[in-house]
Amino acid sequence: MPDTYVLIHGAWHTGAELEAAARHIREAGHTVHCPTLAGNRPDDDRSKTTLGDAITSAVHFIEQRQLTDVRLVGHSYGGMVISGVADRIANRLKRLVYVNAFVPLPGECLNDMVPPHYVGMFDAIAAAHHNSVMLPFEIWREAFINDADLDLAQSSYARLNAHPYATFTDKINLARPLAEVALGKSYVNCQQDTALPHSMTWHPRLSERLGLFRLVECPGSHEIWFSDPAQIAKAIIMAGRD
Amino acid sequence: MPDTYVLIHGAWHTGAELEAAARHIREAGHTVHCPTLAGNRPDDDRSKTTLGDAITSAVHFIEQRQLTDVRLVGHSYGGMVISGVADRIANRLKRLVYVNAFVPLPGECLNDMVPPHYVGMFDAIAAAHHNSVMLPFEIWREAFINDADLDLAQSSYARLNAHPYATFTDKINLARPLAEVALGKSYVNCQQDTALPHSMTWHPRLSERLGLFRLVECPGSHEIWFSDPAQIAKAIIMAGRD
Amino acid sequence: MPDTYVLIHGAWHTGAELEAAARHIREAGHTVHCPTLAGNRPDDDRSKTTLGDAITSAVHFIEQRQLTDVRLVGHSYGGMVISGVADRIANRLKRLVYVNAFVPLPGECLNDMVPPHYVGMFDAIAAAHHNSVMLPFEIWREAFINDADLDLAQSSYARLNAHPYATFTDKINLARPLAEVALGKSYVNCQQDTALPHSMTWHPRLSERLGLFRLVECPGSHEIWFSDPAQIAKAIIMAGRD
Repeated sequence: MPDTYVLIHGAWHTGAELEAAARHIREAGHTVHCPTLAGNRPDDDRSKTTLGDAITSAVHFIEQRQLTDVRLVGHSYGGMVISGVADRIANRLKRLVYVNAFVPLPGECLNDMVPPHYVGMFDAIAAAHHNSVMLPFEIWREAFINDADLDLAQSSYARLNAHPYATFTDKINLARPLAEVALGKSYVNCQQDTALPHSMTWHPRLSERLGLFRLVECPGSHEIWFSDPAQIAKAIIMAGRD
Repeated sequence: MPDTYVLIHGAWHTGAELEAAARHIREAGHTVHCPTLAGNRPDDDRSKTTLGDAITSAVHFIEQRQLTDVRLVGHSYGGMVISGVADRIANRLKRLVYVNAFVPLPGECLNDMVPPHYVGMFDAIAAAHHNSVMLPFEIWREAFINDADLDLAQSSYARLNAHPYATFTDKINLARPLAEVALGKSYVNCQQDTALPHSMTWHPRLSERLGLFRLVECPGSHEIWFSDPAQIAKAIIMAGRD
Repeated sequence: MPDTYVLIHGAWHTGAELEAAARHIREAGHTVHCPTLAGNRPDDDRSKTTLGDAITSAVHFIEQRQLTDVRLVGHSYGGMVISGVADRIANRLKRLVYVNAFVPLPGECLNDMVPPHYVGMFDAIAAAHHNSVMLPFEIWREAFINDADLDLAQSSYARLNAHPYATFTDKINLARPLAEVALGKSYVNCQQDTALPHSMTWHPRLSERLGLFRLVECPGSHEIWFSDPAQIAKAIIMAGRD
C-alpha cells in the first residue's frame, strides 16, 4: 500500500534539493512531497522569519492538502520543524522520521544542541548579515559533504540559500517531550555525518530523546541528498514504513 | 578443516530460530548444533527454571555428544549461558563467540547490565505472569528487529516463547572474570542492534570485559537471525575460526 | 589531474607492506611513494633510532625528490611522523591524511595516547630487547588483523620487523597544534580497527585534534593493508583529493 511522505529540508536548503531522493521513494510506489519552508523561499525576509513561521508553513502545507497518515521526515534543522508540527497536528501524522536531525527538548533552540565554536561563528556571521547566515564553503566541503568529490561539493554549495538565523535561536514551544508523543518514531543516522562532531553527535545523543524509536543507518555524509540519493531514499523507506 | 559450532540462543528463542543461520554455516563445511536451553522448551516450567538450570542443560548437551574443540556461540542472554559453560567445561571448548551478548562479571546477573527502565518493565511483567516474561511487540518491532518489514516483525514475534525471569535475576557463579579465561574470544557486533540503547550498548562496554578479543561487525539488528541469516553466519565464521 | 601521494607506514612495517594499496592508488592515475622510515630499514640500529630520526628521514625523502603538493598519508605510528613532517615542510604539502593514526599534541609521545596495559607490556619487551619492541602474535591476530584468516595473519606477521622503542617514548616537537596547521586534513577510520580499544579509540578521540577535517570510513581492521588493500586505497583517494 502506498504511503504518504513529506520531506522537510534542513537549513540553507529548499525542497528542490530533496527531489533526487524523493524520486527514488516515488519509484518504490509512495507519494512524496518536498515543500520549502518559510524563510528559505526566494522572496522570504531572512531577517524576520521565526522558527514559528517555518513550523506554521509546514503545518499549512499538510492541512491545505488534507494529508493524513503522513510519514513526516525532517533533515537536520528540519528536525526542529517536524517536532513543532507533531506538537500541533499529530492527528494527521503516522510517524516521525529524523534524518541526522535535531530533537529538541521543550524550550530548547537548535543552538542549544550545537558545539559552542559553531554558535560563536554563526553569531558573528548573523551580526554582519541582517541576522541571516551562510555556511563557509570549507566547512561544507570537509564536514558536511565529505563523501563527495570537489565538483559536487562546489555545485551543491552553489544551490544553497541564506538562512534566517532566528530559527536557530528561537526556543521551541512543545507541550511535551518527543519521548511522550504517541506517534511512531525513527532515526536515520548517516554514519559519516560530521556536521556535528562525533564527540557530540546526532545518534545516540539526540536520537534517544525520542524514547522508543527505530534506528536505521547507512553510509554517507550529512549531504547524502546530493552524494547518494538512492541510499538515503532506501533508508527513509526502512525508517518510514510501519 | 571443519569446525564444530554450538549456537546458544537468546531469551524468548529456541534453537529452531537459529537454524537459518546454522544452515549457512554448515554450507561452509562446518558442524553446527542449535540446542534449546532448559527454560525455553515447550514443557519447561517458566516459573522455576534458574540460570544454573539453563547453563547445566548446555553443559549436558556438549558432554553427552562428547563434543570437543567447540566454538561456543552465545546470542544476547546466551552470553550468560556460554560464560557459565566456559567456567565448567573449558576443556571441551576452543573459542567463545559473543553475538551482541551479555558478558557478566563474576556475581552479576543479566539485569545488572540492562537499563533501569527495562528492568522495571520486566519486573512488572514477571510479577503478573508467575515469574515469566514476554517482550511487548512494539519494543520487538522498533528496537529488536528494526531492519525487518512489518510482516517479518510479526511472523518472527509469533515464534517467541515466554522466558523464565529467574535467568535474568540469578547472579552467575564464575571462578574468574572472562578476561582471565584461557580460550579464544570473539565479539560479533551487529551495528544497528538497539536492543540495548547505544548510549549503554554491547560493544565496547561489554565486549571489552573479555580482555583480548577479536571484533567482527556487520550491519543488522539484534534479530538478524530472521532478517539476514546469511550475514550473521558469515560474521560467526569470521569470529569463530582460529 | 594526477595527485602525488606519500604513504608513511606504521610501526613494525616498511614501505613494502603498503605497496599492495599503493598499486590500487596508482591504477586510479596518481603517483605514489612508499618510503621506509629510519629505524625500520634492515641495517638500522633499533636501539638508537629516535622519533626525530624517523621524521627527518621522511623530510629528506620528500626534499630529495623535490616533491610538492604532496598528499601525505600516515598510518598508526606514521601519524607521529607526518605530524612532524608538516611542522617542518608544510610548504611542500597539500593535505595530511591520518589512517587510524596518532595525532599528537605538541610535546606528546605516542605512548601518551595508548592504554596503560600496552605501555606496560612494551616497556617490559623493550627492557629485554635493547630498546626495540615486537608485537606478540596473539595481539596481532586478534586485535590488529581481526578481519583476516589465520594463514594471512601468520604470513603478514612474518613480514614485520622489530621497532625502535624510542619512537614511542620521544616527545614530539611541534610549533603549533595540528588544529592550527594550515593544510587540508583528513582522517580515515577503519571501523573494526581495535589496535586501540574502542573505549579509547582513534576516532573521534584523536581525529578531532585536527580541527576542521574530513572523515572517511570503511570496513576493515588496523591491518587492512593486508586484508583489503583495494578498500583502503579507495578510502585514501576519497580522503586525499581536494
